[in-house]
Amino acid sequence: MKLATLRTADGSTTAALATGAGSYIALPATDVGALLAQPEWRLVVEKAAGAAASKEQKVIAAGEADLAPLLPRAGKVICCGLNYGDHIQEMGRELPEYPTLFAKYADTLVGANDAVEVHGSGRVDWEAELAVVVGFELFRADEDQARGAIAGYTVANDVSMRDWQNRTLQWFQGKAWDGTTPVGPVMVTADEAGEHFDVRGYVNGELVQQGNTSTLVFDPAQLLSYISQFTTLRPGDLVLTGTPGGVGMGMTPPRFLKDGDILTTEIDGIGRLENQFRIHAPVPANA
Amino acid sequence: MKLATLRTADGSTTAALATGAGSYIALPATDVGALLAQPEWRLVVEKAAGAAASKEQKVIAAGEADLAPLLPRAGKVICCGLNYGDHIQEMGRELPEYPTLFAKYADTLVGANDAVEVHGSGRVDWEAELAVVVGFELFRADEDQARGAIAGYTVANDVSMRDWQNRTLQWFQGKAWDGTTPVGPVMVTADEAGEHFDVRGYVNGELVQQGNTSTLVFDPAQLLSYISQFTTLRPGDLVLTGTPGGVGMGMTPPRFLKDGDILTTEIDGIGRLENQFRIHAPVPANA
Repeated sequence: MKLATLRTADGSTTAALATGAGSYIALPATDVGALLAQPEWRLVVEKAAGAAASKEQKVIAAGEADLAPLLPRAGKVICCGLNYGDHIQEMGRELPEYPTLFAKYADTLVGANDAVEVHGSGRVDWEAELAVVVGFELFRADEDQARGAIAGYTVANDVSMRDWQNRTLQWFQGKAWDGTTPVGPVMVTADEAGEHFDVRGYVNGELVQQGNTSTLVFDPAQLLSYISQFTTLRPGDLVLTGTPGGVGMGMTPPRFLKDGDILTTEIDGIGRLENQFRIHAPVPANA
Repeated sequence: MKLATLRTADGSTTAALATGAGSYIALPATDVGALLAQPEWRLVVEKAAGAAASKEQKVIAAGEADLAPLLPRAGKVICCGLNYGDHIQEMGRELPEYPTLFAKYADTLVGANDAVEVHGSGRVDWEAELAVVVGFELFRADEDQARGAIAGYTVANDVSMRDWQNRTLQWFQGKAWDGTTPVGPVMVTADEAGEHFDVRGYVNGELVQQGNTSTLVFDPAQLLSYISQFTTLRPGDLVLTGTPGGVGMGMTPPRFLKDGDILTTEIDGIGRLENQFRIHAPVPANA
């Protein structure tokens, strides 16, 4: 099944089941994270789907669906860098022994079709990524336990302000900007998702990034197990698995998003993010 | 005033006002963060203090107080590294132009007298720090606005698993271990706190670290203003201001905490953390 979080007319959000016809069935939870926190969430979804068939449950037409960030209140959003083996090797580097991890907060997340507003950076770059949604609590879990705790997969773009990212050795200040990490449009449950995914990024329709997650150095279960050695992962937490080659910073000359650009992030079998960027001038004196 | 978060008999917590006599007056909020989220929180505290004087409000004796992490549900815990100017200069380095920032989650926090359990690291190091508690929402704030939004100050120790921290360039995996960052015992409100603080760390009673926050490269208001340029700070968020010289990793030979060691972290005018470490052997094969 495919689950989304939709904005509602009252200014709140609701979890929703995507139907094959492009419409959504509202679910009794404020967002996908709140849904996953219910141990019997699959039964909750099935019951709502049955009620929709008998017209007792609200159905939202495709054209009326306003996609919120998939997990607007994710407790943890943990990202892995330097994880595509083919890209690392083409750069002439050794494969890493350990995953490079950094954290951001749920405030960074925006919906699949939201505008992204950036004030104070002139080097806004893209990082198309597969993201893993945690379904069960994990602490000091092995890889099999971690694999079994994957609720599903979604699409994310770890948009990075390279000027700020490169001010110091720690990337956080270039990665944790409010409302700059698109995520969605849906989570495809692990049982319906394939094993490997083609990940692609486009700027104004031009393909700039592509990779396949079969070349990940650390796969989703390995990442979740590794992270859980030191911190608890819970339902609705999000782990971003890293980006393939093709980021703007690596181009000659480097290329960054301009005001008005459309960034598209796509994973076959999951869906597509399409976000317009509003890059506000002038850049403050301290940037 | 001095505010704390205490564990209660029913397994929950309560915010509390520390009295001059060492006892605490229970406040109508689950923790200091929830208290600060009430715009009129000073009136709430004054009312409870008045009720305690007339014996209508519960008073907890000093010996019965069980200190929880000051901000058990902090939305953001953002840390600054490399921030003591005298220590940076004695190491022969240039003063940084920008603060080095990294993030952790509230799961890392433990109470002022809690045992700290570590599984899987053999290089557990200390970082005594002044921590700043945010009192009002801040986004793209200047330094004056940031200064006005400081609710108060507390003591923290950014305990770091150096083996994990140094596995990759990003420090997160050595810094974000659940239940390893002591914080408390109280928050002293900004109006009652001095401008500069002596920060000291001891291992089994031996002084290992000391510094004064007058030598910070980026002071609390500068840090809050800088962080708020990219992410919203809210009441109950915590910003750790960095550690002075004297960490174990910098000793010759390097020195780390052993099972049973007592780590004491002290700031004059705020209070003292005293935490015993339980460092569990054997270290897993992947550590």
